[in-house]
Amino acid sequence: MSLLVVGSVAFDSIKTPFGEKERVLGGSAMYCSVAASFFTDVRVVAVVGGDFDAEAEAVYHEREIDISDLERIPDQKSFFWKGEYGYDLNVAKTLDTQLNVFADFKPKLSAAARQTPYLFLGNIQPELQVEVREQVAAKLVAADTMNYWIKNTPDELREMLKHIDLLIINDAEARELAGEANLVRAARAVLSMGPKRLVVKRGEYGAAMFTNDTYFATPAYPLEEVFDPTGAGDSFAGGFMGYLAATDATDEAAIRRAIIYGSVMASFNVEEFSCDRTRRLTYEEINARFRELRAISHFEEGHMPRRVTTREK
Amino acid sequence: MSLLVVGSVAFDSIKTPFGEKERVLGGSAMYCSVAASFFTDVRVVAVVGGDFDAEAEAVYHEREIDISDLERIPDQKSFFWKGEYGYDLNVAKTLDTQLNVFADFKPKLSAAARQTPYLFLGNIQPELQVEVREQVAAKLVAADTMNYWIKNTPDELREMLKHIDLLIINDAEARELAGEANLVRAARAVLSMGPKRLVVKRGEYGAAMFTNDTYFATPAYPLEEVFDPTGAGDSFAGGFMGYLAATDATDEAAIRRAIIYGSVMASFNVEEFSCDRTRRLTYEEINARFRELRAISHFEEGHMPRRVTTREK
Repeated sequence: MSLLVVGSVAFDSIKTPFGEKERVLGGSAMYCSVAASFFTDVRVVAVVGGDFDAEAEAVYHEREIDISDLERIPDQKSFFWKGEYGYDLNVAKTLDTQLNVFADFKPKLSAAARQTPYLFLGNIQPELQVEVREQVAAKLVAADTMNYWIKNTPDELREMLKHIDLLIINDAEARELAGEANLVRAARAVLSMGPKRLVVKRGEYGAAMFTNDTYFATPAYPLEEVFDPTGAGDSFAGGFMGYLAATDATDEAAIRRAIIYGSVMASFNVEEFSCDRTRRLTYEEINARFRELRAISHFEEGHMPRRVTTREK
Repeated sequence: MSLLVVGSVAFDSIKTPFGEKERVLGGSAMYCSVAASFFTDVRVVAVVGGDFDAEAEAVYHEREIDISDLERIPDQKSFFWKGEYGYDLNVAKTLDTQLNVFADFKPKLSAAARQTPYLFLGNIQPELQVEVREQVAAKLVAADTMNYWIKNTPDELREMLKHIDLLIINDAEARELAGEANLVRAARAVLSMGPKRLVVKRGEYGAAMFTNDTYFATPAYPLEEVFDPTGAGDSFAGGFMGYLAATDATDEAAIRRAIIYGSVMASFNVEEFSCDRTRRLTYEEINARFRELRAISHFEEGHMPRRVTTREK
């Protein structure tokens, strides 16, 4: 089955403690679609400006990602983000944001896009997420969001949450959305807002998933070098949705495996700038890291010797 | 096999967002020994003052913990700590510390104590940890420490690390000890200082273990109510060392299971003040939570469909 991804396609200028680079490929839809393309056919809905040239397009052709729904506005510029990370790579400092073409983005979907069975609504205005969701006859809809929308458009965000099956956010966002410090209680509050499943990204600590009846958690793949964390969350979403779309399965076991594939794709993505590492991945590398994550978190049934005190006898 | 625990036996006054209580039982050796007593015979080496009365002693008798090596100084007071937690329960604010009897503590070990095969050196001055370690013919020695010793007695701490098999600290301590923000690299640096294994406690995110060749990580048991985090790390150490001593196994598989039992004991401990929850645990409750942790982190082998682009054909 195929996957439709709506979000941003952008240029980023990034500085980390390990290097800096100007105007690399970025945007939630870019990161998500490149990661998902290793699993399934992907179509992108986004908007770009005249600066989206052949070089920027190359990765989409290379990964055979369908960009026929990519709107182009030749006399404007693409979305641009400039950010910096300190040694705490969990926190990005935004130095500049230029919405450009994104300011008036109204997603336009082709007939083919409307028939896509799996839909990922990347982090854009909640109203636009709803607009897209209503046009697509998808069997599974997942969405991301961010603190900006939680704070500035809470009503629109609440409305969006009623239209999706699954929300994929990080733990700070889950806490902020629920107004609750404890993640277990925050998750229950988020689930009461609409989505049947909540996937919580925890960066170097891994990921967790909540439903009303089940809980799953995995550690992250241990990395010695986190070179550039930009796009980790969207790469996670790409691996996650790509695996579900490819297997056309949405049961608990499949979704747990999807979280592992999401973790794997995120772990590769942060090893280099932009999608530089992800785009040249192989099937073997992805599966090898999946197996490593299994080995890393494996432990056998316990056999606890029972010590009985006199009182308990 | 039995376990020897050296550390503090104290009184704590604790305030959390959920309540406060004056002069409850505390101290690293108390938390560790009560948790370990569900698995194996435990002997405590520590010092207390005249305020360590029958009520304070009760839990040791109830759990049949050997306190014949507990030194008593009737005309002085026990170690006292007063602390407060805000909504971020990961950070304790120390309001008062009175070393009292602890200021001149010189651990004195009985002949029986010196023959204990499993030894846990709770968080005390590194020189004292070394002194105890050298007197005990143990087959496995684990130690804890804290930021205070990392900062103030770095040479003594480095010396201590050469005398132990296993270090159990939290992730901030591992980073500080190694002077390295990345945990994987920090772990490698810590292992080069002496211990063959490093167990890293990550609070609500679980725990990880590093050797030079292996890595293991587990999420934490998800709790809706973390009532009082005091003693979580020592309860972890108690479950961990108690299980190893009880099974007399120190291979990778056993140590992974020990980490799970440690996580289980820590998760119970934080549900109430002091050791109030831990002391009335049952064998069935402990094993049930072990099985839950297994279920929570379980996922099956992946079957990733291979999407091959034209270029890759």
